[in-house]
Amino acid sequence: MSILVVGSVAIDNIETPAGSRSRILGGACTYFATAASLYAQVRMVGVVGADFPPEHLRFLQSRNIDLRGLQVVEGETFSWSGRYGHDLGDAETLDTRLNVFADFHPALPEEYRSTPYVFLANIDPELQIEVLSQMDSPRLTALDSMNFWMSSKREALTRAMQQVDVVLLNEAEVIQYASEPNLIVATQAILDLGPRALVVKRGRYGAMLVTRGASIGERFFLTPAYPLEHVVDPTGAGDTFAAGFMGYLAQTGDLSVAGLRRAVVHGTLVASFTVQDFSIDALRNLTLADVVTRYDDFALLTHYDDGACPGRERLQRPIAENRL
Amino acid sequence: MSILVVGSVAIDNIETPAGSRSRILGGACTYFATAASLYAQVRMVGVVGADFPPEHLRFLQSRNIDLRGLQVVEGETFSWSGRYGHDLGDAETLDTRLNVFADFHPALPEEYRSTPYVFLANIDPELQIEVLSQMDSPRLTALDSMNFWMSSKREALTRAMQQVDVVLLNEAEVIQYASEPNLIVATQAILDLGPRALVVKRGRYGAMLVTRGASIGERFFLTPAYPLEHVVDPTGAGDTFAAGFMGYLAQTGDLSVAGLRRAVVHGTLVASFTVQDFSIDALRNLTLADVVTRYDDFALLTHYDDGACPGRERLQRPIAENRL
Repeated sequence: MSILVVGSVAIDNIETPAGSRSRILGGACTYFATAASLYAQVRMVGVVGADFPPEHLRFLQSRNIDLRGLQVVEGETFSWSGRYGHDLGDAETLDTRLNVFADFHPALPEEYRSTPYVFLANIDPELQIEVLSQMDSPRLTALDSMNFWMSSKREALTRAMQQVDVVLLNEAEVIQYASEPNLIVATQAILDLGPRALVVKRGRYGAMLVTRGASIGERFFLTPAYPLEHVVDPTGAGDTFAAGFMGYLAQTGDLSVAGLRRAVVHGTLVASFTVQDFSIDALRNLTLADVVTRYDDFALLTHYDDGACPGRERLQRPIAENRL
Repeated sequence: MSILVVGSVAIDNIETPAGSRSRILGGACTYFATAASLYAQVRMVGVVGADFPPEHLRFLQSRNIDLRGLQVVEGETFSWSGRYGHDLGDAETLDTRLNVFADFHPALPEEYRSTPYVFLANIDPELQIEVLSQMDSPRLTALDSMNFWMSSKREALTRAMQQVDVVLLNEAEVIQYASEPNLIVATQAILDLGPRALVVKRGRYGAMLVTRGASIGERFFLTPAYPLEHVVDPTGAGDTFAAGFMGYLAQTGDLSVAGLRRAVVHGTLVASFTVQDFSIDALRNLTLADVVTRYDDFALLTHYDDGACPGRERLQRPIAENRL
């Protein structure tokens, strides 16, 4: 099953404690498409300038990524420059040049409209809604966003979150949107908008899936992150988390709560590979077999009980039943 | 099997976003003993002043806690005043009065020396070593510490960590001791001292167990924390984490890696009860059945795979085999 992704394609300049890189391939759409192409056929919607290096297009094509929705227009490609401190936490933005991204409006090729899985990467929520309006009843839609849209376009972001099945945000964003310091309470404010599920990304601390359910154990799934001794560049971790998540769902078609949980683990693991090198470089030679090998190691790493998990069968219910 | 604990017994003054409390029962030894008494018989080693309220002694006795090692001396009981901000992170210390704790030296009653499980709560590492020197070959020893001793008594703390089986520290302390920003690398510096296992407490993000092993999945166990919608007072979370951990081990006698993993989960859950009220109040009516109920919910909450966990049998090896 194929996945449509809309978002930024960028040229990045990155500084981390592990080194610096200039004019490397970046952007949420790029990271997502590269990682998700391990699992499914990906269709990109985005824009680049005439300066976009042709070798990047050839790389994306080599991953069987459909580029018919990628507009190439006069001008320069969106560019982002950022720096990470020694704790590899949030990046400090040094420069943002929207360039051709400033006037971007997604226009979907006719063949894209029936794509069953849709991921709206972090862009203006009004553009996210424009994409949704062009889709024919997709099987699963999801969006990412960021603090900037929560303050500048809160109303549009709220409408976008009301229209998708899954919202993916990081911990600070959930707390900011809900204006509530307790993360667990804050997650409810997002779910109350209507999505079937909320995925909270927590960086080195893993991730949380929140759905509806009778007990805490049914409503929440919490997973740690894979422990890494060397992180090179955290850029794209969130986008490739989303790619592992959506990719697993598109490949298996399993939209039960249990399926979403395994998808969250895939997201965590794909992100753990991404941050081990600059740009999408760690993904270039990564195979699904590598992810599955780490998945098995992760199963051992998170395992603590031999007994049957009580209530396991309750996880098999389709998340569609959770819809408000 | 009984557990010996040495540490502070205190009178606390606490401010949190949920309210303020004056002259409440506190201290690492108190928190640990109260929580561990759910699992096993506890023997306390500590000191209080003549001002220590007799109702607190009666409460501890009501938990079948052995107080023969608790010295009552002239003067005032150790007192700590602290304040937590809206994110309920690290406390700001407003006042510390060592009082009778300043001249404390642990003198173990003869009957205590054969206690099989020993927990050295956060006190001067030289006193921790004094306690160890008075013990007859305990089955398992563990210590907690804090940033203060890492800067002021690093050499003594290093010797103490070399002598115990299990070291429990929080994430920032591991990073500080190792002078290494990557937590995973930093854990190795502690294990290299000789303990069989390191438990890293990560507060709202759960905990990590590090042992020796062939693969990442065997060496590391990571668990999230139980999600709480309302946290009243984080004081004592780390001490009661240690109590659930040591209590489970003392009750089951299972010192395999798998046993330690389950002990970490018990620690996480006992701490999750503690922070739901001030002082040890949430523990007063808590039963082991309540912990087990939450354990079952937690199993559901952390569960994501139906398949057998590959390599599970490798977790059954005794941690004694991991000794350097």
